[in-house]
Amino acid sequence: MKLSARNQIKGTVVSVDKGPVTAKVKIDVGGGTIITSTVTTETVDDLALATGDAVTAIIKSSDVIIGK
Amino acid sequence: MKLSARNQIKGTVVSVDKGPVTAKVKIDVGGGTIITSTVTTETVDDLALATGDAVTAIIKSSDVIIGK
Amino acid sequence: MKLSARNQIKGTVVSVDKGPVTAKVKIDVGGGTIITSTVTTETVDDLALATGDAVTAIIKSSDVIIGK
Amino acid sequence: MKLSARNQIKGTVVSVDKGPVTAKVKIDVGGGTIITSTVTTETVDDLALATGDAVTAIIKSSDVIIGK
Amino acid sequence: MKLSARNQIKGTVVSVDKGPVTAKVKIDVGGGTIITSTVTTETVDDLALATGDAVTAIIKSSDVIIGK
Amino acid sequence: MKLSARNQIKGTVVSVDKGPVTAKVKIDVGGGTIITSTVTTETVDDLALATGDAVTAIIKSSDVIIGK
Repeated sequence: MKLSARNQIKGTVVSVDKGPVTAKVKIDVGGGTIITSTVTTETVDDLALATGDAVTAIIKSSDVIIGK
Repeated sequence: MKLSARNQIKGTVVSVDKGPVTAKVKIDVGGGTIITSTVTTETVDDLALATGDAVTAIIKSSDVIIGK
Repeated sequence: MKLSARNQIKGTVVSVDKGPVTAKVKIDVGGGTIITSTVTTETVDDLALATGDAVTAIIKSSDVIIGK
Repeated sequence: MKLSARNQIKGTVVSVDKGPVTAKVKIDVGGGTIITSTVTTETVDDLALATGDAVTAIIKSSDVIIGK
Repeated sequence: MKLSARNQIKGTVVSVDKGPVTAKVKIDVGGGTIITSTVTTETVDDLALATGDAVTAIIKSSDVIIGK
Repeated sequence: MKLSARNQIKGTVVSVDKGPVTAKVKIDVGGGTIITSTVTTETVDDLALATGDAVTAIIKSSDVIIGK
């Protein structure tokens, strides 16, 4: 499946923090950049997300703010 | 001003495409990654966004989907 | 690739409306429900989105408001 | 009040999961589709959201990603 | 219908700018604050949104970034 | 840094509620309006967000739904 989301950045999971409903996942995308994502804890379990996983951070263009 | 948004990635504007209401801005953040942002054309004019500008792509953690 | 987004609803594209930067795509997901998505026109061209295409509408849980 | 959000899908709450700050609500919208929403736990209490409630899942078009 | 979205701010439409797909609507919410919203042009037509309309700006808590 | 986000509303933090992963912050923006934001608890700690802080609520135009 190809996604409409313009931003798809490959990386490696470096931490998974599970709360009762929401979880925080940190993804090292290289060049010293860590991307943080919050998803449901349900999703973390469904995808069996764990440190070391090769993943893609997916971001819709309309969700990117620009600072100058 | 410090922002709550966890993801703040520095880069350089490589293209600005202005429609009547919405504009598309592409930002080279290094490592071969281009981030696409859609903002209002009004904002592009207010910030005088142009190719070559040093900018920051700002993304809230709750807007990052993970693919595995 | 499996996605973290909890909501993935299959349907068929029933219309594609391209503006200069943004496009509006309508997806019939059955049961009389049409889902409307706005994406970049660039994406419509990249995915060659057209009426009749089998697609999936993908929505992050944090983007769903509840009305009661 | 009429809403600008293009996507308003009627359904029935099938589960409510309350964490300390965030809650996860699942809505059966028919045709075998369950929509998951995360909202504040405060909202769940304010709306007295409970299993069996008739609700509407409201989604802005700009929050719908397309997979093809 | 009561909405889960925590932020519902009443105001008056002060401008409507219609592009081919997306429209920009400005809402005066008092105290010198103007809120800008982008919606589909289709929605502007459906709600017959026009200058002077009494409206509510609705924002989900997860879409609010904090600057300090 | 100037932000592309059209909506930047100044206010004062009136409460901070920290869950294990997500936190809820309420901001009094004057005129009787309280804006609620959910951010990561990590962010609350990083910015040392506390009651009484002068902050700005930042909202992208594409995240504002209109009710009429």
